[in-house]
Amino acid sequence: MPRFAHITPNHLAALRAIVGDSYVHTDNETLEHCSHDETEDLRYPPEVVVKPRTAEEISAIMKLANRERIAVTPRAAGTGLSGGALAVHGGICLSVERMNSIIHIDERNLQVTTEPGVITQVLQEAVAEIGLYYPPDPASRGSCFIGGNIAENSGGPRALKYGVVKDYVLNLEVVLPTGETIWTGANTLKNSTGYNLTQLMVGSEGTLGIVTKAVLKLIRLPTDTLSMLAPFHSAEQACAAVSAIFRAGITPSALEFMERDAILFTLPFIEGVNLPIGDEVEAHLLIEVDGMEREPLYRQSEQIVAVLEQFGAGDVLFADSSADQDMLWRMRRKVAEAVKAYSIYKEEDTVVPRAELPELLKGVKDIGRRYGFRSVCYGHAGDGNLHVNILKGNMDDHNWQVTTTEGIRELFQLVKRLGGTLSGEHGIGLVQRPFMDIVFGEPELRLMRSIKQSFDPNGILNPGKVLP
Amino acid sequence: MPRFAHITPNHLAALRAIVGDSYVHTDNETLEHCSHDETEDLRYPPEVVVKPRTAEEISAIMKLANRERIAVTPRAAGTGLSGGALAVHGGICLSVERMNSIIHIDERNLQVTTEPGVITQVLQEAVAEIGLYYPPDPASRGSCFIGGNIAENSGGPRALKYGVVKDYVLNLEVVLPTGETIWTGANTLKNSTGYNLTQLMVGSEGTLGIVTKAVLKLIRLPTDTLSMLAPFHSAEQACAAVSAIFRAGITPSALEFMERDAILFTLPFIEGVNLPIGDEVEAHLLIEVDGMEREPLYRQSEQIVAVLEQFGAGDVLFADSSADQDMLWRMRRKVAEAVKAYSIYKEEDTVVPRAELPELLKGVKDIGRRYGFRSVCYGHAGDGNLHVNILKGNMDDHNWQVTTTEGIRELFQLVKRLGGTLSGEHGIGLVQRPFMDIVFGEPELRLMRSIKQSFDPNGILNPGKVLP
Repeated sequence: MPRFAHITPNHLAALRAIVGDSYVHTDNETLEHCSHDETEDLRYPPEVVVKPRTAEEISAIMKLANRERIAVTPRAAGTGLSGGALAVHGGICLSVERMNSIIHIDERNLQVTTEPGVITQVLQEAVAEIGLYYPPDPASRGSCFIGGNIAENSGGPRALKYGVVKDYVLNLEVVLPTGETIWTGANTLKNSTGYNLTQLMVGSEGTLGIVTKAVLKLIRLPTDTLSMLAPFHSAEQACAAVSAIFRAGITPSALEFMERDAILFTLPFIEGVNLPIGDEVEAHLLIEVDGMEREPLYRQSEQIVAVLEQFGAGDVLFADSSADQDMLWRMRRKVAEAVKAYSIYKEEDTVVPRAELPELLKGVKDIGRRYGFRSVCYGHAGDGNLHVNILKGNMDDHNWQVTTTEGIRELFQLVKRLGGTLSGEHGIGLVQRPFMDIVFGEPELRLMRSIKQSFDPNGILNPGKVLP
Repeated sequence: MPRFAHITPNHLAALRAIVGDSYVHTDNETLEHCSHDETEDLRYPPEVVVKPRTAEEISAIMKLANRERIAVTPRAAGTGLSGGALAVHGGICLSVERMNSIIHIDERNLQVTTEPGVITQVLQEAVAEIGLYYPPDPASRGSCFIGGNIAENSGGPRALKYGVVKDYVLNLEVVLPTGETIWTGANTLKNSTGYNLTQLMVGSEGTLGIVTKAVLKLIRLPTDTLSMLAPFHSAEQACAAVSAIFRAGITPSALEFMERDAILFTLPFIEGVNLPIGDEVEAHLLIEVDGMEREPLYRQSEQIVAVLEQFGAGDVLFADSSADQDMLWRMRRKVAEAVKAYSIYKEEDTVVPRAELPELLKGVKDIGRRYGFRSVCYGHAGDGNLHVNILKGNMDDHNWQVTTTEGIRELFQLVKRLGGTLSGEHGIGLVQRPFMDIVFGEPELRLMRSIKQSFDPNGILNPGKVLP
């Protein structure tokens, strides 16, 4: 008994009438392109890809889909890491790529109103031109969309000092699965008016509605930054240094952890980098401080180095020119791609209170030994957010699918014991769904299902995601 | 047809069995005490006041109430300004005043776990002893509870730089109206794991569940502050200066606006203050900068004064000793009490994008002239959050109840046109409920009602609040 309707010629005709012939695609190339995101090697082709331009068109599509019980999977740039954009039930892939206008930069109120298909870096550069800053910066910021960032509540290195996407979303225009259009809140910095629909939408992974406009908070662009790279003989000691920096009263703008292999895998992908990694080096911390004046940054760097030395850091490499900083950050942003090129992998987006990082890292390696997998860890250590990349390498498919999954379950149980949870910034999507029972009991899941039902009575929007 | 059951002797016996004889109160004094909060002159006595000590006791109370269809109104310190703690349907008033332990200050992770009945200032002082800072600081911080602050998503002056309550709540233990106990999230700084139940609870005004434990984020306590008080001949110019300060690249830690009358009413309440208010002064801005070093604060103050002068500010009074700063802030915190002593009043907690403040203030006065009411305005101007206090004075009751309400409706329509909303930090509670249709359409309200239904199928928890 199929739960969702298959796409018929009548449906296609209706979709063409809504968005125009040029924006309804059933060719293999487009279906194949939209069958995957950046999650593992998963493939789920939709039956049709539709590219509306306006909220009104999206509303008409949703009314059709809701009436006909067609599954609709919203798609931003397809850079997601939890399979949220995969059309696991076929149906319509609804791409927002044509909704790519920055509608209004409000310099008076330090806000921007944007469509969801704008590339994150494009938005950042547009506001930087007038001295403003939109901080959330996922590694994929050169290609990911604001709409996808909102769906996953994305972070990135600067989340440490400046917060994640949820801290910048003031108000959202959303088309509901029923085709109705709402605004979730107001364009204000404070709001105690009814239930927080804005924050309910952020991070809901396209399961509650489709964001068609977002009002985002902006801040002043820091004028000075200073980066440093510190090697450690012990990866656990590197992790232990992280919370000590905060306890010393410093809030860096970024604090990234990279295991030895993360850097070794990545170096070949970066041109013109000569970074000698000694045999005894197990991990690095990449640390950045920023502000409006340079002098305090030097002072903060000295304080940071003093803390790092207590944890056995080697010689710290300073990058105060933008060229040197750019080199370090290009390296950091390339890690995911480099790991992917090295082996099929599963990436777990673990997050714990930051002082529990050493315990988490120790647990990852211990679990890996017991379940027979190799892992490469890196991530936003300052936020306690460790990306655990489990490599397939030569492992046979049974071990990869079954044994490794048991190991991942044990990893998430450890994360939960440490006060953490399944995902810091990648979302649950398709691949983490089987682990939701580790962090939520039946009452929490029942509430979430009931909320989903409130927004999407027929369950047609991004089915098969988030909730087990 | 009564929707809720009245309290019977059997109910009282059951409540006594749950919390003990000493904590079930039906005496007139206790009922009278719990019949009001700080909202206008409203009185709604409950039938019984119950003071549980644990989440388990609250769970048992809720199971009883849910089975017997008894209305339950949660109560923190009763300092609310929208009537959220008023037992408008009688039944049980559930006070959390005995749940007043700070459970654990986690210095390693910069977090505190607390019960809901802890006084905000007590929590702030406990963490300040070890150099940590919990910034949200409502004017009532000397008496209000953390639980009430979470219910209303409270702010205060420091919200400007540091954010409101929602920006500090990481995880909540909540007893649902059905008696089940949940945790909403994890003790982490980042979280993309399922729908954001934490943010759904914050600001839900005790209508979705009762918070029994809260895990709050802490930051480093700033070591230096500098305050200044600037007089203006024109209140609109004072408001216009507010957004100019931010556009100049400065983020003060507080930026408060006070109309002439707000200060004049308040001076008699503050001992030992000699603050000459010239005849030509229409308003003041109270501005504070803070940080870890003093020198940059002087530089920022100079930049601020340069901006203020462009808007016609008079001589700026600087307060760099803590005694002088304390005097200015005691004055600011006393304004609400002073207005209340002056006249019966209605307080509207309007909030708009900050650059729209001059337009809002102009509109308030214009509407007041047309509807025949006098207003005193003050508030957190840096956040665009203007408390509009409408004075009854000699107005007859018909005008007060009917005509003024029409004026308030027009005021909120203006707020909405300016991109704002009904409440920045006081919540909707009882008194702003009739205005919800101004800022939300039927689809948004239907979603909120449906969310309420998911949490509280029998509608027993804080009935008659928030949703129209």
